[in-house]
Order: sequence, then C-alpha cells, then structure tokens
Amino acid sequence: MSYQIAVLSGDGIGPEVMAEARKVLSAVETRFGLEINYTEYDVGGIAIDNHGCPLPDATLKGCEAADAILFGSVGGPKWEHLPPNDQPERGALLPLRGHFELFCNLRPAKLHDGLEHMSPLRSDISARGFDVLCVRELTGGIYFGKPKGRQGEGDDEEAFDTMRYSRREISRIARIAFEAARGRKNKVTSVDKANVLACSVLWRQVVEEVAKDFPDVTLEHIYIDNATMQLLRRPDEFDVMLCSNLFGDILSDEIAMLTGSMGLLSSASMNSTGFGLFEPAGGSAPDIAGQGIANPVAQILSAALMLRHSLKQEDAASAIERAVTKALSSGYLTGELLTADKRSEAKSTAQMGDYIAQAI
Amino acid sequence: MSYQIAVLSGDGIGPEVMAEARKVLSAVETRFGLEINYTEYDVGGIAIDNHGCPLPDATLKGCEAADAILFGSVGGPKWEHLPPNDQPERGALLPLRGHFELFCNLRPAKLHDGLEHMSPLRSDISARGFDVLCVRELTGGIYFGKPKGRQGEGDDEEAFDTMRYSRREISRIARIAFEAARGRKNKVTSVDKANVLACSVLWRQVVEEVAKDFPDVTLEHIYIDNATMQLLRRPDEFDVMLCSNLFGDILSDEIAMLTGSMGLLSSASMNSTGFGLFEPAGGSAPDIAGQGIANPVAQILSAALMLRHSLKQEDAASAIERAVTKALSSGYLTGELLTADKRSEAKSTAQMGDYIAQAI
Ligand SMILES: CC(C)[C@H](C(=O)O)[C@@H](O)C(=O)O
Ligand SMILES: CC(C)[C@H](C(=O)O)[C@@H](O)C(=O)O
Repeated sequence: MSYQIAVLSGDGIGPEVMAEARKVLSAVETRFGLEINYTEYDVGGIAIDNHGCPLPDATLKGCEAADAILFGSVGGPKWEHLPPNDQPERGALLPLRGHFELFCNLRPAKLHDGLEHMSPLRSDISARGFDVLCVRELTGGIYFGKPKGRQGEGDDEEAFDTMRYSRREISRIARIAFEAARGRKNKVTSVDKANVLACSVLWRQVVEEVAKDFPDVTLEHIYIDNATMQLLRRPDEFDVMLCSNLFGDILSDEIAMLTGSMGLLSSASMNSTGFGLFEPAGGSAPDIAGQGIANPVAQILSAALMLRHSLKQEDAASAIERAVTKALSSGYLTGELLTADKRSEAKSTAQMGDYIAQAI
Repeated sequence: MSYQIAVLSGDGIGPEVMAEARKVLSAVETRFGLEINYTEYDVGGIAIDNHGCPLPDATLKGCEAADAILFGSVGGPKWEHLPPNDQPERGALLPLRGHFELFCNLRPAKLHDGLEHMSPLRSDISARGFDVLCVRELTGGIYFGKPKGRQGEGDDEEAFDTMRYSRREISRIARIAFEAARGRKNKVTSVDKANVLACSVLWRQVVEEVAKDFPDVTLEHIYIDNATMQLLRRPDEFDVMLCSNLFGDILSDEIAMLTGSMGLLSSASMNSTGFGLFEPAGGSAPDIAGQGIANPVAQILSAALMLRHSLKQEDAASAIERAVTKALSSGYLTGELLTADKRSEAKSTAQMGDYIAQAI
C-alpha cells in the first residue's frame, strides 16, 4: 500500500518532534510493507514569515492532494502581536478544520502507569488512574456560527457570536462517541448546559435519540460547570466525554492537564471520509525549541492515530502504541517527566525517537 | 439602622443552614446595634409545590420591597423531571438575576489554613495555598442574548443562542474587578477566547481601556481553555479573575472545587444600586438534608457579604468573617471537612452556628 502524507511541522518544537515521528513511521513502513510518501509544507508562523499568511494556498492544495495531514504545532512570541485572525493558531487551524470539514476531534488522555506523580491531582485521586476520551465537535457551534461581528457605536457598541447546532451535526458526532465507547468502558457522558442554552436542549435530545441505537452503552448527561468539577474529584469514573466545540475545547485541555504530561497527548481531527489532521495536543513550546529536549511522544502517537483512522493500518498503529508504552514503562523518558533527582537520566528528543523506532 | 431582608431559604439543606445564618445575624444585631427584619418567601422546589412555579409573584414583590435577598439553595431530585425552564435553579435564579439586573457576581474562594488536605490538588500545589476572587458578569452574554431558539425541521432542525456584549456591560464589570484587586494583590486576569469569539475581542479591548484608570493594577489576559489548565498547576498565581457569564460559570465552579470545601464558599450577586442576592456557592445537597450535618458556614458568610455589600455594615461583616476563621482554625468543623479518623469530632449544623454566633 502506498500513501501520500502532507507534513506540516510548523513552529517551535514542531520540526524536531516531527523528525522523530518520521523515524518511527519509517520503521513501520519496513515492518508492515507500507510505502509512505511525504511532502512538507509551511504552516503557522513560518508560513507568515515565508509567504505572508499562516495557511498559504500551496499548503492547502498539498493537503487536498494527500491522504492525511501530519501536523506539528504552530505559534510563538514572534507572531503574538498580530491581530487574532492572522495569528498562527487561529489562522491555520480553524481554516483547515473548516475547509476539510474536520468535524470530529478525538482527544484521548490517560494517566500512564508510573507517571501518576506528574498529575496535579492529589495522590489518592491520581493513584486510581483515569483514561478519558474526549470526543469534541469541531466545525460547528459558536466557533463557526453566523452572524458574528460588531455593531453600534460608543458605549452601545456591541459584539455578538452565534452558537448554532443542527440535528445532523449533533447526531454525527454523537454516533462517533457511542461507537468509541463500545471499544472502551461502554459509557458516554454528554456535556452540555441545557439549563441555559437552546443548543444544549437540542443536543441532549438528539444524543438521547442516538443512544437508542446503542443499548449496550450507558449514557449520562452533565452540565459543563459540574463536569469541570467532577473531573477533579473522580476522573476515573469517566470514559467517553461527548462535547460541543467550545465545551470540548475547555474540557479536553482540563483533562490533558490532569495527566500532567502534555508531551504524551495526541489529537485526531477527521471528516466523514476518514481524511484527517493529526497533531500533538500540546503547543509549540518555543521556550524549549531547538534544544533537543522536547518530548516527541505526542507527535509519534499522532502518527499512530493517522495510521489507524486515515490509512486504516490498525496493526501499524498499535505497534507504535505498544512501542511507546514499552519506552514509558521502562522509564525511558524525556526530562520533563522525571523528578528532579532523576533528571540526569533524561533522554533527548532523538534518543526517544530512536528507542521507539527500534522497538517497532 | 434598620433593614428589611427577604429570606429565600429554598430546598434541601437551605432552611437548616439559613437558621444558623439567622442566629449569627442576630448576634451581630445585638453587638452592632442594628435592627434587621426578615420576611420569608418560598422559592425553588418548595415554591413549585406550594404555588406551581419556582419564583412566585409574591416572592418577587417581597424581594422588591427588601434591602437585600438572603438566598439558601434550590433544587432536588423531586423536580428534576421538569423541563429545564421550569426547574428550580434555572426558573428562580435566572429571572431573579434578570429582574434586578444583578450583573455583578463575586465568588471568593480560598484554601483555608489547615484545610489543604481537602483540596483535590497534589499536596505540593495545595501547600502553596490560593486565594482567588472570581468576578463574573451575570446578566449578559450567552445566557440572556437574543435571538435564542429553534428553527427548521427534520435533520436540518437547528438550535441557536446568541452571545452578546456591549461596551457598557463589559466596562462596568471590569471596573468592579479592578477595584476589587486594589484591596487584594493588585492583579486582574481577564479570561476570554479572543482567538475565536468576536465578543472576546471587544471584551479584551474594553478591559484594556478600563485598565488605564488603574495603573497600579497588573492586567493579564488568558484564554478560557488555558485558564482551566493553569488553575490546576499554579492556582496561587491568580488573584482576581474577570470573566464573562459563561466562562465565569465554569471557572468559578472549578475554583470552588479546587478548595475541596464547597460548604465554606459564598457568593454575592449585585446590581449598580448595591442591592443584591447572597447565597452559598454549593447546592441544596438533598442527600444530607434534614440530618443536621450540613455545613452552615457558606450561608453564614453569605450573610457577611450581604452586610458588607448591600447594608454597608463593614464592621459587622468582618466580625462574622473573623468568627468563622476562629471556628475553622480551632478545628471546629462539620464532618465533611474532617478526615475519617477524626470524624467523631464533627460538629453539627447547629453547633457550628452557636459557636460562630457566640464568637461575634
Ligand atoms: C487555537 C484555537 C482556535 C484552538 C481552539 O480553540 O479550537 C485550540 O485551542 C485547540 O483546542 O485546538
Ligand atoms: C442554575 C444555573 C442556571 C446557574 C448558572 O449557570 O449561572 C448556576 O450554575 C450558577 O452558577 O449559579
């Protein structure tokens, strides 16, 4: 099998962690007899520098011609003075999501054995562990709803955004959450604010309807404010969390932080054809870029998600995940995951990539 | 001085914790020579049972005639099957906020000395303590914005809500946050999603303008998703958090949970005349109602906020707060704040009230 991948490494640590993901993918090619062709495109800050905008036409065309997008990370202090719409994150990610209708965002987050001390949670809570999959709707809601803008003058000037969801949008993302739950603990927690939002009332209704097709999956509803709280007390009781765009943005980041190891978390954003964008959940970390100390695991796991969801190479995907688990459980770790007394055992970005590639 | 208070005890533990707040207020009356007159009105579930709606006309009229509203808590399983709009919380709180234009919600939350073990945070993080005041806009944004509703049919049926903020609404709440910061650590963190929302772009702009009148206060901006994360890692670095209605709903609850002691947290919702509604931040806790074990401190501290903000009796307010601190730091605590081995020392709801009243 031969595949075409658009590689958008971006800024900060993007290029260095991407190099390790490529190493691991090449081990997978050999082992599973795949042929993966890569084309690199500028995105984010580097694209602003080279082409004057965060998502140049050539990049978009390259993505259109590919089977999947492997994305690094974008942004940094150099571009923070730009107006929000022109900044790397907003100016690249939102148009990509919109253009390819990447409505389904999967953000898995679990506390790895042996890394409980990284969690900001109290030790008796983190000792119970957790493994949550956040399923976030990514092309609807208040991110894209029209009208959005400003009107009026002086003190009466006002701004407005529209949160909008159709039955179709809600049911397609709900279905994905229920299907994912079947391969996990068979539980979906749908997050809304049905005591205030009309969108949430429809959301709850449609989710209930979809649930009828999944009698083996338990469904519960929780308000966003309460979800934010319960995740702190009993994260182990959640399995799949089904969220609208805005609530998913907030909750997936809260859950990521609860693991305490953002460098391990990856994210998949897909459309209905299986095409997708795969990226680490963390940012471009400009403060540590270029030092060879960034954790490449999130980028490597993004490649695994790409193999699974877009290239339908489940065996190759799980081989990568097993190799990562092996590294982590052998204590083969980058510095940020080690306590101060063990910092001298820290592995470099390249050492991590080598180890994982070899373990394939 | 003589005052008229509308007492809306509501459901669950509401009436029993309210009784203790009344005890403490009566100690304050004697000591500071005040005359406080109370009239009780039904609200929430009990009002649904007695009058068919969660906020009867008589209750609203009684509140109009009063100098302040002392609110207990509403809701419980008995009324959960009702449509969202008719439920006790939504059907009582939102109309009260709207009717009296209670645009300013103050939610102070700190980790009390000696109660660090209650926090769900890792011990080295909770050991640093924190003291955050959430200033939440309460009558604007997506809660009240029009249009809000549904249209279309079948799969195309859609729901919509409107987030809307005017300069006037933003600047009046921002001013309150900056003024509050002056009596604290001189720092305001304004929470928004300016990389996505038009409302947030205006929010950020107006907050910057207001900040010019407070050169002694440091202002920083943070995205809501990042705020949710940073509160878990470094809660001690925040002072005043300035939030829109929806983001304040989410963040104030996250912060409350970070203290691990919801029974200690109170909340003030005020309008521009100083009139306000004062209530515990926690819920009606129907599971422990009627057992005499509920913590009355949040209700007692709500009475202190009422004295300070609506009745302008600062001395009486601080006397209550000092008495509460005395109780807590002497280890005079209700059961939920004690570790299992000390549970036998737990004080009852009434004992807490007696102790605090006596300490006035
Ligand atoms: C950059 C921003 C627009 C984006 C979002 O809010 O979706 C980011 O926070 C994310 O979660 O990928
Ligand atoms: C009951 C609900 C409408 C309310 C809100 O969201 O404002 C509650 O969560 C609160 O924070 O007081």
